[in-house]
Parts: sequence; C-alpha cells; structure tokens
Amino acid sequence: MLQKNQFSGICKALTTALCKYIIKDMKEIDFSELARPNINALKPYETKEIPCKVKLDANESPYCIDIIPDKKILKRLNRYPDPDSKELKKTISKALKIKKNNILLGNGSDELIYYLITTFGGPVLYPVPTFSMYGIIAQALGEKNIGIPLDKDFDIDEERMLAAIKKYRPKLIFFSSPNNPTGNGFSADKILRIIDSSFVIRHPSLVIVDEAYQPFSSKKGFLPLLRDYKNLAILRTLSKIGFAALRVGFLIADKDLINEVNKVRLPFNLNALSQSMALEAFKNKNIIEAQIKNIASERERLFYELSRINNVWPYPSEANFILFRTKNANEVYKGLIKQDVLVRNMGSAAKDSLRVTIGTPKENELFLKALIKAVGGKNEKG
Amino acid sequence: MLQKNQFSGICKALTTALCKYIIKDMKEIDFSELARPNINALKPYETKEIPCKVKLDANESPYCIDIIPDKKILKRLNRYPDPDSKELKKTISKALKIKKNNILLGNGSDELIYYLITTFGGPVLYPVPTFSMYGIIAQALGEKNIGIPLDKDFDIDEERMLAAIKKYRPKLIFFSSPNNPTGNGFSADKILRIIDSSFVIRHPSLVIVDEAYQPFSSKKGFLPLLRDYKNLAILRTLSKIGFAALRVGFLIADKDLINEVNKVRLPFNLNALSQSMALEAFKNKNIIEAQIKNIASERERLFYELSRINNVWPYPSEANFILFRTKNANEVYKGLIKQDVLVRNMGSAAKDSLRVTIGTPKENELFLKALIKAVGGKNEKG
Repeated sequence: MLQKNQFSGICKALTTALCKYIIKDMKEIDFSELARPNINALKPYETKEIPCKVKLDANESPYCIDIIPDKKILKRLNRYPDPDSKELKKTISKALKIKKNNILLGNGSDELIYYLITTFGGPVLYPVPTFSMYGIIAQALGEKNIGIPLDKDFDIDEERMLAAIKKYRPKLIFFSSPNNPTGNGFSADKILRIIDSSFVIRHPSLVIVDEAYQPFSSKKGFLPLLRDYKNLAILRTLSKIGFAALRVGFLIADKDLINEVNKVRLPFNLNALSQSMALEAFKNKNIIEAQIKNIASERERLFYELSRINNVWPYPSEANFILFRTKNANEVYKGLIKQDVLVRNMGSAAKDSLRVTIGTPKENELFLKALIKAVGGKNEKG
Repeated sequence: MLQKNQFSGICKALTTALCKYIIKDMKEIDFSELARPNINALKPYETKEIPCKVKLDANESPYCIDIIPDKKILKRLNRYPDPDSKELKKTISKALKIKKNNILLGNGSDELIYYLITTFGGPVLYPVPTFSMYGIIAQALGEKNIGIPLDKDFDIDEERMLAAIKKYRPKLIFFSSPNNPTGNGFSADKILRIIDSSFVIRHPSLVIVDEAYQPFSSKKGFLPLLRDYKNLAILRTLSKIGFAALRVGFLIADKDLINEVNKVRLPFNLNALSQSMALEAFKNKNIIEAQIKNIASERERLFYELSRINNVWPYPSEANFILFRTKNANEVYKGLIKQDVLVRNMGSAAKDSLRVTIGTPKENELFLKALIKAVGGKNEKG
C-alpha cells in the first residue's frame, strides 16, 4: 500500500506533468493583456538617436565642464550611496538659500514627477503643448491626465484652466515655465491666481512649477514665493546647465510636502557618483553662470537671424532653445539631418514646428546655414 | 463708467484679495490628507546610519575594486545618457549568455521592482521574512501585498503559498533566493510548481526570482530555466558584488515582458557614469569571482565559529551574510555597536535575530570577538 508521502509525491509529479502539458498549450502569454489596462495605451517617451555632428535636439548645454569624481567615492564603490544625499542637500541649500528639509533629490526631475504622482495621485492637469513626461508618467501610473491648450500667445489660458480645475479637481497641476517646447515663461500672476483658486473651491491642488529652464530666463522665478504658498512646489535640474549625464533633479517645497513624497522615494535613488559629481558641479558656479549668459545672448542673436529667414517664424524664448514654425517642417527636419544637424521635430505636439537648442556660436552658425538651405532659399526678409 | 477691462481687472484683484484671506485661514495644509490613503500607512525603508569602523549591516562586498569612469564619458557630462544603455546591455548579454532584448536595466533592482508593480499591478505575493522592498513598493503604489510565512526551515510553505495564489490571484510573486534575511536558497522544485500552478487556474502570475545573492550560492540559479517558463523573470544586481555605489540592477525575462515593463521606464533612468562604470566592472570578472569565492569560504568559517558561541544559533547561508538567533538581540546589537561593529537588527522581521554581512577576514575576526563579549561570555560550546 502507498505510504502517505509516496502518495503525495505521485500527486506532485502528476500535477507537474499536467502543468507542463497545459503550459505547452498556453505557451504564448500575452503580457500586454496581463499588464494594467492603462499600460496598453501608453506610448513611452521617444528618444530617437540620430547621430549628427551638430546635436541641437535635446536642450543640453553645448559646454562640458571638466570635473572628476572625488577619489573618496571611487574608494567606496562597494558601499551604498548616502540615502539622504546629505552633502549635496547642504550645498544646494546654500546655493539656493533654502533649508535642507525643503529639498528632495531625484534621479532627474523625471523621477520626482513619478514620485509626486505616486504620492498624491491624479487627476494631473497641465497646459499643452508642454514637457511630455507629465502626461506619460500620469498614464503609466494609471492616473487621469488632462492637457489644456495654451492661448494664442502660448500663455496659460486662465479661464479654461480654472474651469478645468473646477471640473476635474486635479491633485497636481504642472507648469513648465519657461515652457518646453514653446520657450516662453508663463504669466506669474496667472499661476498665482491658479494656486489661490484651488483654495476657493476648498480643494487645494498642488501646483508644481517646473523651472528646468529658469536659469536662462530674465524673469524672476518662483523660489521667493515658496514661503507664501504652501501648495506650491518647484522642480529644478542640473540637466540643462551642463550635467545631463548625471541625472540630478530636485524638488523644492514645504517640508511637510517633502516628507510625504519622501515616503515613496526608493532609499538609494541617487547613486554615489552622481552625488559626488553634482557637488563638484556646484563648485563651478561662476563658470556655469558665464555659460548661461553666453547661451542667452546667443539665443537672442539666433532669434534675430531666424526671424530674417524666409518661411521661418521663431517664437521668443526665455529658455536654452527656440521653437520656430516653418513650411513643410518634416522636410526641413530631414533636410537638416542630411546636413548633419539634428533638431527636434515637434510633430503633433506643435504643428509645423521645429525646436532648436542653442549651441555654441559655431554650431549655431552651422545650423543657420543648413536651415537656409533646407527651407530652400536665401535669407530674403532682411 | 468702467471699461470692460477695468472691470475685469478689479474683479481679479478682488478675487486675489479674497483668496489671500482664505489662504491665511487655511495656512496649514495637511499633506498627508492630500496624499493617497495608502501613503499614510506607508513606512519607508529604514536606512539608519550609525557610523562604525566595522560595517557589516548592508550586505555590501567588503572589497572595492579600483576602477575609474571612461574619459569619454567625462567629456560628455553635458549630454544625456544613452537611454537604452546599449553598450552595457551588450556586455551583460555576453557575460550571462542571454539576448540583449531579454534585459532591462534599472537604477538598482529597487527601480525594476517599482516598474514591475507599476506595469502589472497587484496583488503582490511573497514569502516572509524577505527583502522588505517588495511590500513597501507595492504599498507605495497602492497595490495589495501579501506575505506568506516561510516554513520552519525557512523554505517556501508550498501549501499555504498555493492556497494564497488561489485566493488572491496575485499578478506578481517575488522570491528572493537566496533569501534576505534568512540566507537559504528556496527549493527550486517548489518555485517551479508555483510557476506552473498559476497556469492551472488559468491566471498566469508572473514569478520574479530575485537573485541578488545568487553569485554566493552553490546551487544553480534560474537563468537556464527562462526559456521554458515564460512567466518567470529574474532580478540581478551589481550591488552585492562590489558596486553598490553605482545602483545598477537588471531584469532578465521574455522579450515581450521586457517590452511591457519598458513602457513605464523613465527614459534616462540609468545615468551615464553608472553605465560607464558598470562596463568597467564587468572587465574585472576574474577579480570579482575570486572575491566571491573568498566571501563564501569566510561565510563557512564564520558559520562554524558562530555555532560554537554560547547562546548564538546561526542559520546556514547561501548568501554573503548570516542570520543568527541570540538571546536579547537588541542588547547584543547595542553591545556590538559599542565595540564599533555594526550588524543588522532584524527587529520584528525575524525575532531575536541579527544579520551579519561577511566582511574581510579581519573584520570577521573583530566581529566574532565583539560578539562573544556582547553575549556576555566565552565560546563554551566547543
């Protein structure tokens, strides 16, 4: 007679055999069916890599500052990074004159957007066109996301925005200011009234002003207003001012908001080398500021030159790029690539428009020459 | 008479004044109330920093391999990292003999766990005690998470696990094998039967075997089984074998699963320096393997020595740490700190237990000496 454990053994073997049979039958799992429904429709952020000598597509700084990681870090590669990035927070705190507990560091601003939406959920509201990650991340996290068209001057359409706030009661409102890809800074008064409005309906939305491009702007940013508006938060990044490789972004906000978002942060989200290199970066404040000035003045020159080209209509910019309208944008885009110049084709995000990052004076010249050729004619307006 | 725009101006001014009045009234926003309900209860991962000369608390390698970032990367700090980590994927592909499109890279395995749960949702099932991040991340993302106690030998309690699968129909099942903090590898047969079982109930759960500690194990890992089990995925990391500072983890799975998870990945999740340094790390394969052998043999020695200490009961380990039970674990933990030796106090995760990472032979000696003193007596069993 079978012993109990023999019997159980045979049962297990039979189950295994049966399973294997069924598996063969079901060999093809449809992972998109297993994924949450919101993932199916999700189109990830596009990062097309087209190698061109003149790379003006990603709003990077054209200048690389010569820094190396602290040797102490290289001697501790086997150790986990400081989970609180204490040194870096101290440095940012000094540089921006804010308290350490008002800062949360991220693996790029992207990650901080992820954490904000994870913490507070949706709906997530923002004007369009804007930085695509607000919508993509909200969608990845299964949260409702609503884009409200900008007005004809690319400023916030306050009435529509307020109506949308009333209707959707968003948890988070994102403003990229200066805005990517339009380049303009939004009216601060409008943003402040929107911050206030959420209190009137007794439903405080959190307003996140993404100041990735603020260093290039002549307008005052929102940092001085943080004290007065508890539901205001600011995003900053090292990516546009020379250190995109490091992936260091920071959220600046009320300490209670920071504490709440910190709960969903992965404990070691900022690797040790990026922490160390960011510290080195801050030591080059003067060089960075000189580069920014240079980029801003090149932007003005480029704007003037662009406005003189036939069939090219640039929009004024407070950022390190210029959006311009042109006829047959797709053709012009391809024509530039043929001449080894890469810009950003805005596609449906901004019709008939290309976005060019401000490069070195030499790169900007090469771009202008190539553009004149690509639009099929000489500069004739002037 | 008022012009229309004057009137509108006055209205706006009045609204602003009203808002400011209301804001004063509501100055204190309760952000924890604004956060999603699951965030309130969330206790983040603890990373206590207690400076001790002998640091054996974080399952790090005691050895730092001397590598530096490629100069080419330092000359391109202003550029975004390769969003696809092509070079690194190629290297991992060669080293582990898997195809590139079966790999997804993360800012540590933590981030990949985040992405898996974002993609497929919950319920998330795992045995306990185990690596705490499965539960913490599931909770952060608002997904149900269920821990099933291990059996008395710290192996998977198959019956309870299968019952839980039937009851909860988990989307994801995590097995840390070798398991943190218990140190043992789980029975592969049990895991395979669990993988199969989900097909029987026509609800394929995805089974993630987290092989962070597999390099230290004498048992075969799950990589060779990937081909046969489409709903099996494997996590690996550089953190335990000498490069915790970099935050590089990888998910290895069917390419369709990888594609689905890749949709929620942030485009530049792996910074350029970590990509570059990970490439350098792989060049030191022989050194790493020698260090792993050394750590494994020190583990056996340490196990033997621990088993000879009065009131100390170590559990056999296949990882780079040993869990041991002791009387008055809290006191022993503090006693070790007083002697400049830091281990991990498991608290409620594993009652009366401490976890010690295998250090250098010298560190292990210092730990043993300190432990004998901390438990208040000499080695007397032997």
